[in-house]
Amino acid sequence: MENIINNIPVTKCEKSKISDVDFNNLAFGSVFSDHMLVCDYKNGAWETPKIVPYQPITLDPSAKIFHYGQSIFEGMKAYKDTNEDVWLFRPMDNCKRLNISAKRLAIPELPEAYFMEGLKALLKLDSNWIPTNSGGSLYIRPFIFASGNGFHASPANAYKFIIATAPSGAYFSGKVKVAIEEKYSRSANGGVGYAKAGGNYAGQFYPTQLAIQKGYNQVIWTDDNTHEYIEEAGAMNIFVRINDTLMTAPTSDRILDGITRKSIIEIAKAEGINVEVKKISVNEVVEAAKNGSLKEMFGSGTAAVVSPIAAFGYKGTDYDLPELENSYASLLKKRITDIQYNRTDDPFGWRVKV
Amino acid sequence: MENIINNIPVTKCEKSKISDVDFNNLAFGSVFSDHMLVCDYKNGAWETPKIVPYQPITLDPSAKIFHYGQSIFEGMKAYKDTNEDVWLFRPMDNCKRLNISAKRLAIPELPEAYFMEGLKALLKLDSNWIPTNSGGSLYIRPFIFASGNGFHASPANAYKFIIATAPSGAYFSGKVKVAIEEKYSRSANGGVGYAKAGGNYAGQFYPTQLAIQKGYNQVIWTDDNTHEYIEEAGAMNIFVRINDTLMTAPTSDRILDGITRKSIIEIAKAEGINVEVKKISVNEVVEAAKNGSLKEMFGSGTAAVVSPIAAFGYKGTDYDLPELENSYASLLKKRITDIQYNRTDDPFGWRVKV
Repeated sequence: MENIINNIPVTKCEKSKISDVDFNNLAFGSVFSDHMLVCDYKNGAWETPKIVPYQPITLDPSAKIFHYGQSIFEGMKAYKDTNEDVWLFRPMDNCKRLNISAKRLAIPELPEAYFMEGLKALLKLDSNWIPTNSGGSLYIRPFIFASGNGFHASPANAYKFIIATAPSGAYFSGKVKVAIEEKYSRSANGGVGYAKAGGNYAGQFYPTQLAIQKGYNQVIWTDDNTHEYIEEAGAMNIFVRINDTLMTAPTSDRILDGITRKSIIEIAKAEGINVEVKKISVNEVVEAAKNGSLKEMFGSGTAAVVSPIAAFGYKGTDYDLPELENSYASLLKKRITDIQYNRTDDPFGWRVKV
Repeated sequence: MENIINNIPVTKCEKSKISDVDFNNLAFGSVFSDHMLVCDYKNGAWETPKIVPYQPITLDPSAKIFHYGQSIFEGMKAYKDTNEDVWLFRPMDNCKRLNISAKRLAIPELPEAYFMEGLKALLKLDSNWIPTNSGGSLYIRPFIFASGNGFHASPANAYKFIIATAPSGAYFSGKVKVAIEEKYSRSANGGVGYAKAGGNYAGQFYPTQLAIQKGYNQVIWTDDNTHEYIEEAGAMNIFVRINDTLMTAPTSDRILDGITRKSIIEIAKAEGINVEVKKISVNEVVEAAKNGSLKEMFGSGTAAVVSPIAAFGYKGTDYDLPELENSYASLLKKRITDIQYNRTDDPFGWRVKV
C-alpha cells in the first residue's frame, strides 16, 4: 500500500503488531511501533524521507558506524490527551539540537522540514501506538549514523537518519541513589559532551556498573580535571535545592543543553522559585547535606522527566535527602507533565499539536 | 562448502572476488577479502567463532551500536615474505588491548584463543589476499560492537566480534603537515581515550576538518585542560626529536598505548638512540623549532607505521621541520618494517608466523 502523509511517501506494513502489545506492561523502549521514518544521505545530499514498515537495517561490515562512532540521537515523546489529540513538547528544540550534535560529529546537517514533517507524518500513521494510560507516552528516537563504508578513519560519505518510536511507561520507578564520581569522567573540555553522541553514553557504562555494584543507581559526573564540580548524570541534568534556592550547572561544551532542564528552569521561575544557574561544587552540596540546608536533588530528562534523588554517595559516605511534603521535584514534574499532556494552559508556547 | 581450520568452522564463498582486484592500486581499507570471522555474544557467553563469506550485517534499528556507541576495534597487518610465509606483528598485544578497550566500554571480554585462532584460520584461508608488492600488507580489522536491542541507555546484552581484512597499500603518502590543537580535545582525564573506542574517532573528525580547511593534514591533540602538552594524533602516537634525543608522551588514560609506539621506543633504544618518555610541552617544541634544535617529528601507528611530519602549525604560525639525510624516522621505519616483513632477524621476538 502506497500513500502520502505531509508530503512523505508511505509504505504501510501488511499487518499491525499492535494487538500483540500489552500497553499496561511496557518497559522503556523495548517494543517498537509498526513504522519508521528513513532518510538517506548520499552523494552529498539528504534524500527525501520516507515511511516504511519497522524493519532491520543491513550494512557492510566496513560501515563506519561499527568503527568510528559517528552516531547521534534525540529523545522525545508524543503525548495523547483525553480527546485523543496528539502533542509534542518543544520538538524544534530537538531538531535544532540534533543538528548541533551533527555538526560536532562531522555529520551533514539535516533539513529541519525533513525532521518535523517526517515526524508528524509518522505520528499520524502510528497514532494508535501512543499510550493513553497514566504516565505513558510514545517515546520517539530520531537518530543518525554513518552508513558509508571503508576502514579509513575519516567521516563517512553516507548516513541514515531514522525515526523509530516505542510505546513506553515511566523510565524510572521510585527515587534513585546516586554516586558522585571521583575518578572517571564523561567528557572533556573541547570535547563532544554537549552533543547527544553515542560515544558519550558507552563511556559511562563501566563507571556506572562499578557504582551499581556499590548499591547506587546512577553516577553524577564531575569535571574531569578536579572532580570538584557537579556536571550532569549522563541521561539527566541535575538540580540541587539548598534551602529554597534551586540550582543547576550552566551548560557548557561538556554538559548537554537539556530541553527538560531549560523548561524546568523557566517553570520554576514562573512559580516564583529562586533559580540559580551556576557551577555547583561537591563540597557545597556535602556541607549543605551536613547542616540540613540540602532539601532536594533531582534529575531532569525526557525519559525520566523529573527523577527525585533519595541519597548520594561521596568519598565513602552516603548522604540521605529528606522526604519533603511539598517538594519542588513533585511540583515541577506536575507542571511540566500537565503542559505535555494538555491538561493545562501552555503559557510558554511549548506544546505543538500533531 | 564446510570445513575446519584451527578448530574454526568455515563456510567458503562460492566464488572468490580476488580476480577483480588491482593489487597495484589499492586504497587503504576499501577492498575486502573473501571471508570474515564472526563470533556472537549471547546469553552471557561468547559463542564459537566461525568463518563465513564477507557479507552484510543485519541489525534491528534499536541495536545499541546505533545509539550508545559501544564499539571498539583493533588495527593490525599481515605481511607476506619472499617465501610466501605469512607473519603477524605482536598480535597478542592487539588481543590484550582489545580486551582492555572492552572492559572500559562495558563490553564482555573475548577469549584470547577465539581472537588468535580465529585470526590465524582466517589468514590461512585468505592468504592469497595478502599483497606482495612493496609496502603492501593485508590490513586486519578486528572489532566488537553492541548488537543487542533496546533504547534503554545501558550496556547491550548481545555483541558481535568480527575480523575483516582488506589488502592495502601504504596509508599516507609523503610528509604530513599537522596543527597543534588549541581549542578542541580528544579525551578527558578518567575518560576512554586509552581505549580504541569508536567514539574517540568521531569526536576528532570535525576539528580535523577545520584543520584541513586551514591547509593541515592532521591534528596533534593536547591535554583538554591547558592545551600545553602534546598527547597523540588520533590515529598515531607522536615522537619529537630535539637534538639527538627522541621523546614521546607517556601513555595515560587519555593516550592510546600504541603497539608501533612501544616498538619504536625499544628499537630506538637498541640503536643507541637516547629515548625519553615524558610529558612534552608545546612551548618546548616551539622553542626548539625556533632555535634549530628541533630535528624531527613523526607519527607512529599500525596503518602509517612511521609518518614523518613536514611542518606544524601553532597559534597562527607554521614551523617547518628540516629535511634530514639520516632521519630517525627513516631508520626506525626501516628497522620495524624489516622485522614485520621477515627481512631481518627479530631480536625482540615480535614476529609470529601464521
